Amino acid sequence: MEPFKLHILGCGSAKPSNGHLPTCQVLDIRNKLFMIDCGEGAQMQWARVGLGMSRLNHIFISHIHGDHCFGLPGLISTMGLLGRTADLHIHAPAGLKPFVDCILTHFCQDMDYDVFFHEVDTTQHQMVYEDRSVEVWSLPLKHRVPCAGFLFKEKPLLPHIRPEMLQAYDIPVSQVNNIKAGMDWTTPDGDVIPNSRLTRPADPPRSYAYCSDTQYMPRLAQWLKGVNLLFHEATFGEGYAKRAQQTCHSTARQAAMVAEAAGAGRLLVGHYSGRVKDEKMHLAEAKEVFANSFLSNEGQVWDV
Amino acid sequence: MEPFKLHILGCGSAKPSNGHLPTCQVLDIRNKLFMIDCGEGAQMQWARVGLGMSRLNHIFISHIHGDHCFGLPGLISTMGLLGRTADLHIHAPAGLKPFVDCILTHFCQDMDYDVFFHEVDTTQHQMVYEDRSVEVWSLPLKHRVPCAGFLFKEKPLLPHIRPEMLQAYDIPVSQVNNIKAGMDWTTPDGDVIPNSRLTRPADPPRSYAYCSDTQYMPRLAQWLKGVNLLFHEATFGEGYAKRAQQTCHSTARQAAMVAEAAGAGRLLVGHYSGRVKDEKMHLAEAKEVFANSFLSNEGQVWDV
Repeated sequence: MEPFKLHILGCGSAKPSNGHLPTCQVLDIRNKLFMIDCGEGAQMQWARVGLGMSRLNHIFISHIHGDHCFGLPGLISTMGLLGRTADLHIHAPAGLKPFVDCILTHFCQDMDYDVFFHEVDTTQHQMVYEDRSVEVWSLPLKHRVPCAGFLFKEKPLLPHIRPEMLQAYDIPVSQVNNIKAGMDWTTPDGDVIPNSRLTRPADPPRSYAYCSDTQYMPRLAQWLKGVNLLFHEATFGEGYAKRAQQTCHSTARQAAMVAEAAGAGRLLVGHYSGRVKDEKMHLAEAKEVFANSFLSNEGQVWDV
Repeated sequence: MEPFKLHILGCGSAKPSNGHLPTCQVLDIRNKLFMIDCGEGAQMQWARVGLGMSRLNHIFISHIHGDHCFGLPGLISTMGLLGRTADLHIHAPAGLKPFVDCILTHFCQDMDYDVFFHEVDTTQHQMVYEDRSVEVWSLPLKHRVPCAGFLFKEKPLLPHIRPEMLQAYDIPVSQVNNIKAGMDWTTPDGDVIPNSRLTRPADPPRSYAYCSDTQYMPRLAQWLKGVNLLFHEATFGEGYAKRAQQTCHSTARQAAMVAEAAGAGRLLVGHYSGRVKDEKMHLAEAKEVFANSFLSNEGQVWDV
């Protein structure tokens, strides 16, 4: 199966107090890379992971708080130094544009590539990006500033060819794409072999959702039905539920409630406040509601 | 003796390719902290070193390349999150101001402290900061954009009191400051005890110079006479002398030539290009010219 992997480059919150780095993730979908948020240090983490920068063409930024975008100046500049020529696309709430413009104006005059800004409407659940194999949908979140999550959905895959059947009926390779697309096969004797005998069903398309930063939003679940892997911020533990509410963040328990209601495959929590002293307890609070919960950590790679 | 220490937070160059972090140093002069350049990741490095942020009030930025200032957004924001109320002063070439303004406008509206920008004229060797115990002088450098180094000079210190003499002549404690300031002592019998018998000479004032980034500039030495510790960029080794010239950088050998001509106490080299594969060889090239040369590295603390 082609890769659909999530790299955790940073999963802390704003103050660099607990050994975590500010938020940054990289999604590898069939060898195309998508960056989600770009906290300070993203380019150094990227260098550590050893992914090729030329495979990254789209960056999605959830909101205009520094711990989600202060890695952009360094990343954009370094791509220029490395001789990039391909366009780079940044998808983000409108408020980020002046910051990107400032970087480009004052630091990137000599760069050989262009950066395009695509505004994400944080009030709508709608498709914000599409290519041959993937759709990206915005997820309206409730934070102190306009904020969107992102849902990455693989497009429906083609069925698998059964090679033994191709051989049995002596079907030429030139017909493989037609059969994948649903065609039956007619033998020289005029027998019709139904497509269902020539193929195995396609793998179900995979999906990943990124929800950060947000107050607990029960209605998120409707957009996340059956998502394979859900990252949901869990800035605080239960002891700080009131503070979570006040600062428009979620607790680990609330993250798990969203995962449970959505019927998610797995839940990944992160964006830990410095107040989370015991991450195991944090995880336990999530697991009480949704057993398939995990802690995110820098350097992890998750298969979606 | 009161502290005069240099912390190396980052000593790499623009591309994060060789395990080093972009440039950032912190100078602790008699418990006041001064930051020199602020590359990406400065705040995370700061947290690792464990210095108190409230002791930092002045940041000196040499020039407007990202690897020397992309840590500012995160540092300024985090100081706000930590509840800072004291003014912060940034001393830098004029070109940095729009970047600082952009950060303050778009990310720091709710901050309880003010940031003041002080323009450094990179064409002049002049005093750019002064307090009771230290002077900071700009050092004109030759780089692709306006660039200044900084010379930190302790002000002349007061002589040491000889406590045994205070006792011998029964001199009241109230007179200590006067004697430190040079006063002789007249005994009740009218004998005049010369100041030189009551004190030991003051420690010689210490100095630290920071020269980055720059082409080889022989005339730098005139401003650095007898400096105790000199940091001089050494982006390239001898094999890349031509590239150093073209990109307005120095080789390790050239850094050592400046140290030698200035009669510096010690030389610290850094700002290593990714092309420096063998730092020991790099050091050897400097030592050939100036024996008291050392490699800078993240986490080091140097006593000036």
